[in-house]
Amino acid sequence: MKLEKYIRDIQDFPKEGILFKDITPMLNNFEARQDFLHVLLQSLENKKIDKVVGIESRGFLFGMLLAQELKAGFVPVRKPNKLPFSTLSASYTLEYGTDTLEIHTDSINPGDKVLIHDDVLATGGTAKAVCELVEKLGGEIVQLNFLMELHFLKGRDKLKNKNIFAAITY
Amino acid sequence: MKLEKYIRDIQDFPKEGILFKDITPMLNNFEARQDFLHVLLQSLENKKIDKVVGIESRGFLFGMLLAQELKAGFVPVRKPNKLPFSTLSASYTLEYGTDTLEIHTDSINPGDKVLIHDDVLATGGTAKAVCELVEKLGGEIVQLNFLMELHFLKGRDKLKNKNIFAAITY
Repeated sequence: MKLEKYIRDIQDFPKEGILFKDITPMLNNFEARQDFLHVLLQSLENKKIDKVVGIESRGFLFGMLLAQELKAGFVPVRKPNKLPFSTLSASYTLEYGTDTLEIHTDSINPGDKVLIHDDVLATGGTAKAVCELVEKLGGEIVQLNFLMELHFLKGRDKLKNKNIFAAITY
Repeated sequence: MKLEKYIRDIQDFPKEGILFKDITPMLNNFEARQDFLHVLLQSLENKKIDKVVGIESRGFLFGMLLAQELKAGFVPVRKPNKLPFSTLSASYTLEYGTDTLEIHTDSINPGDKVLIHDDVLATGGTAKAVCELVEKLGGEIVQLNFLMELHFLKGRDKLKNKNIFAAITY
C-alpha cells in the first residue's frame, strides 16, 4: 500500500518555494481514507483512548474518524473566540508573530487517555501548544498522530518524550 | 431519543443577546454522536451519494462521518486561499459585508449525487453559496443536512426546491 499516491504535490503554495502536500484527493476517495485510517489505528496497538483531540481545522477530519472508530470522545482545539464555554489557551511562535489555540476546560478529565491528531507535523509548534493544554487539564497523552510528517522541519525536537506516529514521512 | 439534551445553551455568545447552541458536549460523547449520525443517515433513505460536501470548519466534523458511512468522497468547502488546487468561489452577504467560500474544481464530476452538510442552518447564506458551487460543477444536490436548524432565521427561504433535513429544529 502506497499512501503517498493519494497526496498531490502543489508547487509554490501558499507561497513561492513551498511544495504543498494536498490531501484533498485522498479525502475524496473512500478507499484511500480507509487505508490512512487503518494505518493510524494500527499504530495505536489497541491502546485505550478516552479522548481524541483534533486541531482546527484539518485535524477535525481524521480526528472525528479516529474518535468514532475508538468509541472515544472528540475534543476540538480551536482558534481564539470560537469555543463558547470556559476555555484554556496556549500561544506559540510562528515564523512571524504568534498564534493562539483554545480548549474547553471541561473537555478532558484528569487521567483521561488522550490521542492528539492533526493532518501535518511541521515545525511542531502547534502540537507542542496542544500538549500543554491537554496536560494542564490532567490528560495523559498516549500518542500524537498525523497524516504526514515533514521530517526536515524537525517537529519531533519540540515533542521530546512523546509517542509520535505519522502515516507518511517526507 | 432526545438529541437536544446533548446541546448546551450558552447565553450571550459570540455577542450579547445571542443564545449559542454548543455542540461540543455531543462531540465529546460517542453515543450522542452515534444518535445524531443515525438520524442524519435515516433521513437519506438509502439514496446513493457520491460526494459529501462539508463546509469549513464545523461542517468537516459530521461531513467526514457521513462520507465514511456512505462510502462517498469527502469534499471540503473552505475559506479563501486555503485550497491549493484550481478553485471556484462564491460570495455571500453577511450582516456586515460579504464572505467567500471556495471549492476545488476537480472535486465533483458532472452528474455526481451530492449531500451538502454543515452544523447549523441559520440565515441560509452559506448553504446557498455552496449550492451554487456544487451546481456550477454539475453536481446534483440530493439533500442538505444539518445538525441543527434555527427556524426563526428562515434559512429555508433561501433554499427553495432543495431537500433539507435538520436533526434538531429550534
